[in-house]
Amino acid sequence: MTQPKLPEQMTAVHLQTYSGAAGLQIVQCPVPQPGPKEVLVKVAASPLNPSDLSFLQGRYGFQKPLPTIPGFEGSGTVVAVGRDTGLMGRFLLGKRVACVTQQQGDGLWAEYVATSVNYALPLLGAVGLEEGAMSVVNPVTAVALIDIAKKAGHKTVLNTAGASVLGLMLHRLGQQEGIEVVNIVRRAEQVEQLNAQGMHTVLNSSDPHFAEHLHDLCHQQNIRLAFDAIAGDTPQQLLAAMPNHSRVTVYGNLAQQDLALTSGGLIFQGKSVDGFWLTRWVGQKSFLPSLLMWRRAQTLLLTALKTEVRARYPLDQAQQAVADYEATMSGGKVLLVVGE
Amino acid sequence: MTQPKLPEQMTAVHLQTYSGAAGLQIVQCPVPQPGPKEVLVKVAASPLNPSDLSFLQGRYGFQKPLPTIPGFEGSGTVVAVGRDTGLMGRFLLGKRVACVTQQQGDGLWAEYVATSVNYALPLLGAVGLEEGAMSVVNPVTAVALIDIAKKAGHKTVLNTAGASVLGLMLHRLGQQEGIEVVNIVRRAEQVEQLNAQGMHTVLNSSDPHFAEHLHDLCHQQNIRLAFDAIAGDTPQQLLAAMPNHSRVTVYGNLAQQDLALTSGGLIFQGKSVDGFWLTRWVGQKSFLPSLLMWRRAQTLLLTALKTEVRARYPLDQAQQAVADYEATMSGGKVLLVVGE
Repeated sequence: MTQPKLPEQMTAVHLQTYSGAAGLQIVQCPVPQPGPKEVLVKVAASPLNPSDLSFLQGRYGFQKPLPTIPGFEGSGTVVAVGRDTGLMGRFLLGKRVACVTQQQGDGLWAEYVATSVNYALPLLGAVGLEEGAMSVVNPVTAVALIDIAKKAGHKTVLNTAGASVLGLMLHRLGQQEGIEVVNIVRRAEQVEQLNAQGMHTVLNSSDPHFAEHLHDLCHQQNIRLAFDAIAGDTPQQLLAAMPNHSRVTVYGNLAQQDLALTSGGLIFQGKSVDGFWLTRWVGQKSFLPSLLMWRRAQTLLLTALKTEVRARYPLDQAQQAVADYEATMSGGKVLLVVGE
Repeated sequence: MTQPKLPEQMTAVHLQTYSGAAGLQIVQCPVPQPGPKEVLVKVAASPLNPSDLSFLQGRYGFQKPLPTIPGFEGSGTVVAVGRDTGLMGRFLLGKRVACVTQQQGDGLWAEYVATSVNYALPLLGAVGLEEGAMSVVNPVTAVALIDIAKKAGHKTVLNTAGASVLGLMLHRLGQQEGIEVVNIVRRAEQVEQLNAQGMHTVLNSSDPHFAEHLHDLCHQQNIRLAFDAIAGDTPQQLLAAMPNHSRVTVYGNLAQQDLALTSGGLIFQGKSVDGFWLTRWVGQKSFLPSLLMWRRAQTLLLTALKTEVRARYPLDQAQQAVADYEATMSGGKVLLVVGE
């Protein structure tokens, strides 16, 4: 395939200051050239994830020099390849790919992105560009958390922010893998929404009897592992409800508050707290297991790992998209739709 | 040996309310009868440990119905044995023993205590009743923490409240076992005291450059495990200073404050927090390893696990002893001297 003629300029979203939606600006800038071992992807779509919000606010695991283009995952078509991309580069040219970016280089909220050849993952034929755009961060997190629960021998686990896209995935993937995921939500109407989707054990943390119900459930079912996306007071609530020798694994900080923990649970009840970061987890795997895991996640994208989209925005409305997502983080994804 | 005639009444310390020193009262009460599988010990001495203070304040891992006699460890002579104590009972009669009490029954701050035959540990000939009185809680904690560090492959660990009796023991036992213990203290004069005792790496948390020094040391020496007796903000300070994948094990709450932890360290840096409780740790061991461990600790009581006594009080001054210990918890033990 011959490489199509590319424009010189593109539309992109620039983060100018680490201040959330307010720090974003729509700019015209040069289309990047793929460097050595890189491919150039014409972006189709890119979702907003909690990790993007943390990054925009300067609270993520790293910061980049500003201005930078945000967007940790998306999809598109490989339209050019750089030097030293070898057979894989030739194979990818013209292919539809899912794409992730990390600490190096720009993100996906642009018409084009240059990314490592290893981070352009060819999509299966049945997977559309929209599903493909959301096929890494949440699906692989779901696979990872269920894997962690399974390897540690847990039959039932708790998960907070349970009305999120990830909460739904964890529940469905858990069903396939024999792990029951009890999702905890923050509002009564979310309980009804999840019940309507076939989840029968959903707890509402704003219910006045929540602590009591959670305690009883955890002791009846011997639940000793909780995944928490909220931080603040939530890990302590979860630890207090679970039996001795329980653990909370924190993977998000939606509360934007430090954790407050009593020492008694740690000392006298053998409880513990740790954390999960997808990037670190994947980094501990070697290449082939990671690829196989992602292939497996892909086959589930239309079933257990399906993502609902609740709003689509064009690239030049990125600021409104972020504001919308910040206001309502449950009920489906907000997607930036960039091109074909 | 014939059992000596015992008095009917004894002096004891009663905890009337969970309110620290203020909740104590000196009473005359009946000398207990050893029940089945129990021995009666004529108490010689009993130290004040941080766990006793927590218990007096109602903040320990359990509470007992009040009034109760406090005092988790001590020493004395076995003067009577109950039914079903078998060969061990006959062996112990007349012997000098170290003695621990737990959730069941009364403690050691009395002239006599009835305790399980399993919790009366015969003292080696070279070990005096004073050393024997302090031969379990701190020495076995030191053995346990060094064991935890060693099994997890750490070469150097941090310990807070480093001027405590336990801090000294950890340092000396660590030297024997090839684990360097860096003690952290809270005042400049404590650094000098510890230096004078041969500890050359001692950090002072009230030094304005403390955070920087601790960070540099932890990164140079790859220190990834800290034992913390303070809680409050301290575990977060320790985690922040240590490299990725570090752990703080909390074993005390001298600050009497909840832990405050940032989520970023847990999520992005793979750090974690757990707890240590001697009772739980010993409970996970079977009887023989526990006994061998205690025998080994005993042989070190005059060297690595030696305890300095800084003040002695008679039983009827228990309230003053507690107040003294609350005011100054470092620089040696406060001991209740009960009898011969």
